[in-house]
Amino acid sequence: MASAPSGSGEDSLIARYFRPLATDPGAFDLNDDAAALGSTGDDIVVTTDAIVEGVHFLPDDPPDTIARKALRVNLSDLAAKGAVPAGFVLTLALRNAEESWLKPFAAALGEDARQFGCPLLGGDTVSTPGPLMISITAFGRVPSGKMVHRSGAKPGDRVIVTGTIGDAALGLAVLNGGKVHADLSDAAARDMLISRYRVPQPRVGVAEIVREYASAAMDVSDGLAGDLAKLCAVSGVSAAIDLDSIPLSDAARDLLSRGVVGIETLIAGGDDYEVLCTVADDRVTAFTQAAERAGVALSSIGMVVAGSAVPKFLDRQGREIALKRRSYSHF
Amino acid sequence: MASAPSGSGEDSLIARYFRPLATDPGAFDLNDDAAALGSTGDDIVVTTDAIVEGVHFLPDDPPDTIARKALRVNLSDLAAKGAVPAGFVLTLALRNAEESWLKPFAAALGEDARQFGCPLLGGDTVSTPGPLMISITAFGRVPSGKMVHRSGAKPGDRVIVTGTIGDAALGLAVLNGGKVHADLSDAAARDMLISRYRVPQPRVGVAEIVREYASAAMDVSDGLAGDLAKLCAVSGVSAAIDLDSIPLSDAARDLLSRGVVGIETLIAGGDDYEVLCTVADDRVTAFTQAAERAGVALSSIGMVVAGSAVPKFLDRQGREIALKRRSYSHF
Repeated sequence: MASAPSGSGEDSLIARYFRPLATDPGAFDLNDDAAALGSTGDDIVVTTDAIVEGVHFLPDDPPDTIARKALRVNLSDLAAKGAVPAGFVLTLALRNAEESWLKPFAAALGEDARQFGCPLLGGDTVSTPGPLMISITAFGRVPSGKMVHRSGAKPGDRVIVTGTIGDAALGLAVLNGGKVHADLSDAAARDMLISRYRVPQPRVGVAEIVREYASAAMDVSDGLAGDLAKLCAVSGVSAAIDLDSIPLSDAARDLLSRGVVGIETLIAGGDDYEVLCTVADDRVTAFTQAAERAGVALSSIGMVVAGSAVPKFLDRQGREIALKRRSYSHF
Repeated sequence: MASAPSGSGEDSLIARYFRPLATDPGAFDLNDDAAALGSTGDDIVVTTDAIVEGVHFLPDDPPDTIARKALRVNLSDLAAKGAVPAGFVLTLALRNAEESWLKPFAAALGEDARQFGCPLLGGDTVSTPGPLMISITAFGRVPSGKMVHRSGAKPGDRVIVTGTIGDAALGLAVLNGGKVHADLSDAAARDMLISRYRVPQPRVGVAEIVREYASAAMDVSDGLAGDLAKLCAVSGVSAAIDLDSIPLSDAARDLLSRGVVGIETLIAGGDDYEVLCTVADDRVTAFTQAAERAGVALSSIGMVVAGSAVPKFLDRQGREIALKRRSYSHF
């Protein structure tokens, strides 16, 4: 991103809306072709996630929520890896450069950049005849070699998640109309679920705590069941999950108990952006207390076990439930 | 990018085609949510460029050339900033995951990654109903504080470009049919121009030389005239360019001399991906010799002058030519 002297359309819109977000000295006020991340001796953790109109957000979603989601899905990855945010670059593929869209988009992105200490470092703006797409590559710092991996889970470790699971999937279901929308008369509950879909709450506050305590971690983006299966596969272990222990919001619990949705909707739906991690049994108490001090609720939902089977989800009677699908896949 | 145990469509295609490209230990075999760039004490230079079907490449372009262009436009930025490639992350927005497209795409990307020493570190694959889009964020290393900037050009510096200018714009004109295509009977010349459009030649070999000698630098991506204007504006200077000194291929010179195209097509057309830089007059000889040893031809095309006017382009008689446009803009 760089501004032209006389101001072509692209350059002047970048200058107007995005330069205020480039508060890091390494962004060079977006006046250059590249940014620089100075060395602190830490490793730079790099993650990239794109969101596409009609796939990850809806055409009618407000531009401010789209901006927040684009950045937060990446902040969620950094948190799960134990990394403290350092900055991000943005690629924006737009059909046109409408100020009425760009202004609230950039304002909300700037608010989140400040809130999470993750300044804009640079980017690229391109035109597309197709759907709007926002691709963000975010950077975080960890002490050398201390990134938290998907590998590292050991039999006997507890499986732990932050926040609640399934709300975002329900929020999408509400927005799509249909059964969930019709059966949920409580407007506040509807708004909460929609908000969980549109504006994830990345658990940036527990990044350093995850780094200290977790044997393995990832964020839940494609569904708890599928993401746990991925973590287990890379760690060479399996897991037994107690369905009743999976943290649900009141709205989700109500819809589940009335049979409006099944458990699969909640644990294979995706878009949660919570941290899923494994912690040695004798460190769970200290981990939980540290997370509580950071204002993040944790739930222990099961146990890592030996083996290579996909994780089992057990009901109150200890019977395994069958899952037809475990996660969202793009293809 | 990470693989699933049982293999959802997305994950298994990533595993099959992209894992072989992830040769850096910090890529963790694409088995994690993020990559890590280890500290060497150098600054990490970050650049991001996206290419969109129908905008930066044509729907009929072969997948191998699309892959090379996507990476090389970023390598070109790194070279102009004096940075040695360290790796890249890839966001691929696809309508579908056709093996007949992905296989040659990944193979060519892997060849370029090896050739330029820039391994795949991670990425994201998303589905889109719209045009294919490839967004790459690339990383390079420079000694602390040594990134070459757009600012820094001083009156009296020479303006220098690598390679030849305008071929890519002509290549696009050939592919679009019309006058250039009809008036160029030489098939080899046509192929050369098309190749310059489809497969840029990033000047990675001169990155360290640019770092040693250039007072300011950027790559020419949106047209020489416009990009020079940007460099001058950020440096707070102007420039006088001798049109006859702008390096042209035989094919471009022929089309220009026959009046098939005007000079504007060549210097405002974009997609050159050459390095544009300024060098103190007394260092030009040493710079040129060092670049020659690296196998890259340089041309001195004019002089940095004081002032804030947009750069002047002068004909053989020293008269300024009028330019209706100076660069490509997306909006």
